[in-house]
Amino acid sequence: MEKGPQGRRRGRGARERILGASQQLFRDQGINRTGMDQLCAAAQVSKRTAYQHFTGKDELVAEYLRRFDPDVTGGVFDRTDLTPRERLLAAFEVPAAGAQDITPMCPYIAASIEIHDPQHPARQYARDYKKAFAARFAETAREAGAANPEQLGEQLALLLDGASARTRVLNTESFPTAAAIAAVLIDNAIPTAARGSVRGSIRSAPVRVAGERQPGQAS
Amino acid sequence: MEKGPQGRRRGRGARERILGASQQLFRDQGINRTGMDQLCAAAQVSKRTAYQHFTGKDELVAEYLRRFDPDVTGGVFDRTDLTPRERLLAAFEVPAAGAQDITPMCPYIAASIEIHDPQHPARQYARDYKKAFAARFAETAREAGAANPEQLGEQLALLLDGASARTRVLNTESFPTAAAIAAVLIDNAIPTAARGSVRGSIRSAPVRVAGERQPGQAS
Repeated sequence: MEKGPQGRRRGRGARERILGASQQLFRDQGINRTGMDQLCAAAQVSKRTAYQHFTGKDELVAEYLRRFDPDVTGGVFDRTDLTPRERLLAAFEVPAAGAQDITPMCPYIAASIEIHDPQHPARQYARDYKKAFAARFAETAREAGAANPEQLGEQLALLLDGASARTRVLNTESFPTAAAIAAVLIDNAIPTAARGSVRGSIRSAPVRVAGERQPGQAS
Repeated sequence: MEKGPQGRRRGRGARERILGASQQLFRDQGINRTGMDQLCAAAQVSKRTAYQHFTGKDELVAEYLRRFDPDVTGGVFDRTDLTPRERLLAAFEVPAAGAQDITPMCPYIAASIEIHDPQHPARQYARDYKKAFAARFAETAREAGAANPEQLGEQLALLLDGASARTRVLNTESFPTAAAIAAVLIDNAIPTAARGSVRGSIRSAPVRVAGERQPGQAS
């Protein structure tokens, strides 16, 4: 049992330190390139302690995904200051890591590509997370009055995944492109009558999205 | 120098055998999980021979991407039996690996996620390939009479990337979703006049795409 100068406190923090190290190392160098030795060194825990908290790396990877802050983009669905239509559009305003940085790669896509077995617990969790996210989109699309909310939800979820993958490949921010597509789909799916009846619908018009023409604007 | 029963013929085939083994192993288990030892064993070449053909794994990974058959989806742009508008839509009809199988992961996205250094030759090639693909989309969009062909090209390219990433994460085919979005974007971007002037425009109407409503169809 590991006992540092702070006694039990250090032991209690080991699990968090391991998860913290995995957040950083998995993001910076990938899951498959990060071994338990390196994770233990970064977390300042012994391997014995690490294996007391996680049966192995597979379990750690799954827990890393479960603990990934889901509020990064998911929190937008709970914003009561926005209309449902505005919430759909706001999901595409992903904050970049820094002023000159690009949006970090989605960890659920990265894990699904790095791990080849679709039955791996991390792959299952990634799948569940992505389905739940599409369901939140669909629920909000229904509130916004979309003709086919499930279809729109799945379409918007695909756009976010496309923006994340393409941002990584091009090393250039692709979320504005996804936002412009989302604006077209939302305009197409939500009848004018429903759009007129929700609060703040003018503010959520595609004019806010880079690269989109305003309705009635000369081309 | 390696000399098998077939003399020089075996030596000449070594490079191809290594690339063939990389195609299979990188797809089935990933780039980072595949070592040179395993590649050499699968290709039936000595490590010495392998390093005569490639300075190292980095060069092999870049060549693997360069040699990946670009006609899998790119060939659609050369189809003279289709109108430009039909070619844009046909790019989303990606053939699955088998009858019950899902579309394999895009190797350019996978490599870009597995390799963290954006300056790695494989990352640079993946970026160039993806930009060239968007340019082919844009060129075809221009032929089809799109109002902003560069914008439409980049949007359609993002949809393909989204379909590939999401198919992997969900382990379910997402290309029909991307095709439905593409049909909406193409309808939006190509004025009715331009659409009416191209051959076969009726056949390429969104009616072909699963989940899309026909224009004028009752909801």
